[in-house]
Amino acid sequence: MTSALAYAEANFDKFVAQLEDLLRIPSISTDPKYAPDVRRAAEWVVADLLDAGIKHAELCETDGHPIVYAEHIVSSDLPTVLVYGHYDVQPPDPIDLWDSPPFEPVIRNGDLYARGSCDDKGQVFMHLKSLESYLQTGTELPCNIKMLIEGEEESGSVNLVPFINANKERLSADVAVISDTAMFAEGVPSITTGLRGMAYVQVELTGPNRDLHSGVYGGAIENPINALARLISKLHDKDHHITVPGFYDGAQLMTEAELVEYKKLPFDETAFLKSVDVASARTDGGISIHQAITAHPTLDVNGIWGGYQGAGAKTVLPSIAGAKISMRLVPGQDPDAIVDKLRDWFVSNTPPTMKLKFENLHGGKPVLVDTDQPAMQAAADAMEQVTGKKPLFSREGGSIPVVADFKDLLGLDTVLMGFGLNSDAIHSPNEKFGLDRFRMGIGTIIRFLDLYASRNRN
Amino acid sequence: MTSALAYAEANFDKFVAQLEDLLRIPSISTDPKYAPDVRRAAEWVVADLLDAGIKHAELCETDGHPIVYAEHIVSSDLPTVLVYGHYDVQPPDPIDLWDSPPFEPVIRNGDLYARGSCDDKGQVFMHLKSLESYLQTGTELPCNIKMLIEGEEESGSVNLVPFINANKERLSADVAVISDTAMFAEGVPSITTGLRGMAYVQVELTGPNRDLHSGVYGGAIENPINALARLISKLHDKDHHITVPGFYDGAQLMTEAELVEYKKLPFDETAFLKSVDVASARTDGGISIHQAITAHPTLDVNGIWGGYQGAGAKTVLPSIAGAKISMRLVPGQDPDAIVDKLRDWFVSNTPPTMKLKFENLHGGKPVLVDTDQPAMQAAADAMEQVTGKKPLFSREGGSIPVVADFKDLLGLDTVLMGFGLNSDAIHSPNEKFGLDRFRMGIGTIIRFLDLYASRNRN
Repeated sequence: MTSALAYAEANFDKFVAQLEDLLRIPSISTDPKYAPDVRRAAEWVVADLLDAGIKHAELCETDGHPIVYAEHIVSSDLPTVLVYGHYDVQPPDPIDLWDSPPFEPVIRNGDLYARGSCDDKGQVFMHLKSLESYLQTGTELPCNIKMLIEGEEESGSVNLVPFINANKERLSADVAVISDTAMFAEGVPSITTGLRGMAYVQVELTGPNRDLHSGVYGGAIENPINALARLISKLHDKDHHITVPGFYDGAQLMTEAELVEYKKLPFDETAFLKSVDVASARTDGGISIHQAITAHPTLDVNGIWGGYQGAGAKTVLPSIAGAKISMRLVPGQDPDAIVDKLRDWFVSNTPPTMKLKFENLHGGKPVLVDTDQPAMQAAADAMEQVTGKKPLFSREGGSIPVVADFKDLLGLDTVLMGFGLNSDAIHSPNEKFGLDRFRMGIGTIIRFLDLYASRNRN
Repeated sequence: MTSALAYAEANFDKFVAQLEDLLRIPSISTDPKYAPDVRRAAEWVVADLLDAGIKHAELCETDGHPIVYAEHIVSSDLPTVLVYGHYDVQPPDPIDLWDSPPFEPVIRNGDLYARGSCDDKGQVFMHLKSLESYLQTGTELPCNIKMLIEGEEESGSVNLVPFINANKERLSADVAVISDTAMFAEGVPSITTGLRGMAYVQVELTGPNRDLHSGVYGGAIENPINALARLISKLHDKDHHITVPGFYDGAQLMTEAELVEYKKLPFDETAFLKSVDVASARTDGGISIHQAITAHPTLDVNGIWGGYQGAGAKTVLPSIAGAKISMRLVPGQDPDAIVDKLRDWFVSNTPPTMKLKFENLHGGKPVLVDTDQPAMQAAADAMEQVTGKKPLFSREGGSIPVVADFKDLLGLDTVLMGFGLNSDAIHSPNEKFGLDRFRMGIGTIIRFLDLYASRNRN
């Protein structure tokens, strides 16, 4: 392990340069016109795995973007770690808010700026480089490794579950490890123990069969934008409580006891609001911000459109208005059941003046991780060895549906060992990843594999 | 006059071909990138006026798009008619809903399809060709003619009032004539006696200072799209009554007596709804559709935007959401006062989580025309001679602010002699103008000038 750690230190600059190459590929999975770039990124990852010395790495076709699968089996006596990550990225828009082009990586003040630098190319790359550090120093890996790196995480992972189902044997392992989450705060190492699930739909209202002149028809023909706004506004009550019937049914909201523990975490509400320049929070019934963003369900409109959006004025009464709406879910809420409830709500609330089109775009189940699993302790110890601090256990508001899929389909627990920060602006302009954290992650993973293997020989 | 009518008949196909040339110029005034085309259209009109035999025609610079001014003074004994029209057009989007390219005119079933074919290139062109029909047959015009053809009607006419103020002497006349309105229905000749005014604003809400990950911030940071939807929905109550305080103050809504007369007009509500494929109307307090779209104030959202509008899903909590909102006004409502009331409403209703940006894009005063003016009778008689039917007097829902400006600044009454149809889809995809109405308009204008002049010598 010592030589692996030394190799990682000695080759850190090379690692960063390689990551920059990967970040230059605009692997935007949600927009079909980037499909060739997505494939290029997958091929790049396979090549890097083979260069690192991994015994087997291949590009697996799906109905959508390819999945990268790799494995390095040392011995059946050793435990097997399944590493999951994704090489696809979010769209960069609004493009004009980036200080430097999203796919031309640059380092400023020790941070690497590029779309995907943190989510998730930078974090999954820490695993590749950890394995390389072992293998390129003639050191065998301390445990068996399998890697599943998909290209559709940012577009719903529609082909992931079919792939897992078709490859259960191949993917069998003792534990899964994912680095796609954030630390609690700068200098506060932490391991994520809970994730919100997600339901994502698109709603479209059609009023008149064509765009109309607002002077000739306005006042009698209902405007789909006004109608859509009315529907959206009805989805929350004045206390910001979601009004869809049955939405909270079965939701495992935080218990009083959990809240007591949770309130001990060093969460700075003022700094949180200041970081996004917002005067005050708006939470469901006034619960704490930290609870609201990590352990409570939400409903957000992620996009809206209709009518004329260009310069100046156009007096149009539009035919169509649409919106993308997503809900973050907590354990006990099923994405499909929630979508059905929302669909029923829209069907019964859409006025007779409008035609409704409702699409379920994708969803993911929420998860709570078992904090007593052995790999969790190994991860905590590895992190403490690197940072000198005991990591906190905390929940995160984002969604990584595969964690629930691994549990359901492969019976695997997952360790969420993330090195991002909320300030890394993932899904936003100027996404970045701190090179100090990139270094910390590699060191932690090298140690984790060693600690976990030594304590869990079969 | 007889030879003029004969010339118009003989040269009708040439007139149509010339109009097609004008329609090929994309003179979209609201979008700065079309400025060169707007100018090209102005120059085309000047050239056509001079070819027609008009004594003087020139392109007048403004701070925006140029104004075309022309005059043909025969004798101080004769009355002077000021013709107003506009050579600019609305943007064609949504472009994909056009059956043929908006700036490549085609004739189908006797209708000429192109952006601007009816609004207003086709209608103003009827005047040019009427004058040509007199002058190219060696017949002097029966009265003095002045023409004011602007290029900013579809973008708020911001430079028109300054031009009128600077040229009051030059523009002095006995009556104004505008062909930029619709007939009551196919085969039902009519003259418009009232127009709604307009107030048009743009509203933008900024929540967080950048786009955020909805999983990391959702539930605590208010979403500007949700907030904007809530504000828009509050602008109408459940009876579709506008809630902005003082909005209806002073509005000259239809009196019981007027309504009795109005209800006699042959307005087919079923056909109206069927023509736009809408199941039912939604009017202020349930008033009749005809009253609602012509003689009652309205509030419509003409455009809305925010977040991700591309393919697939993006889990963004956007920084900004915006909307374009316009109000149609009736006599007694002042555009600036209405905008102030709406601004106050937004200022006091915007939540503390949002920053508000409110812009007044443009406005226009509503008008009621004096139906007893002599030119009105001449227009009615001319129309009856051409169509064989007595024209109806009716109000229209659209806005032509210059009518109020002519009254206020030049003391001129206006005759609204329009040959469009609501089914001409102005401001919509597949805008068209019936060639039969183009012919009818030219014949009517030739007769109108003769009738009006013979009855109103100074």
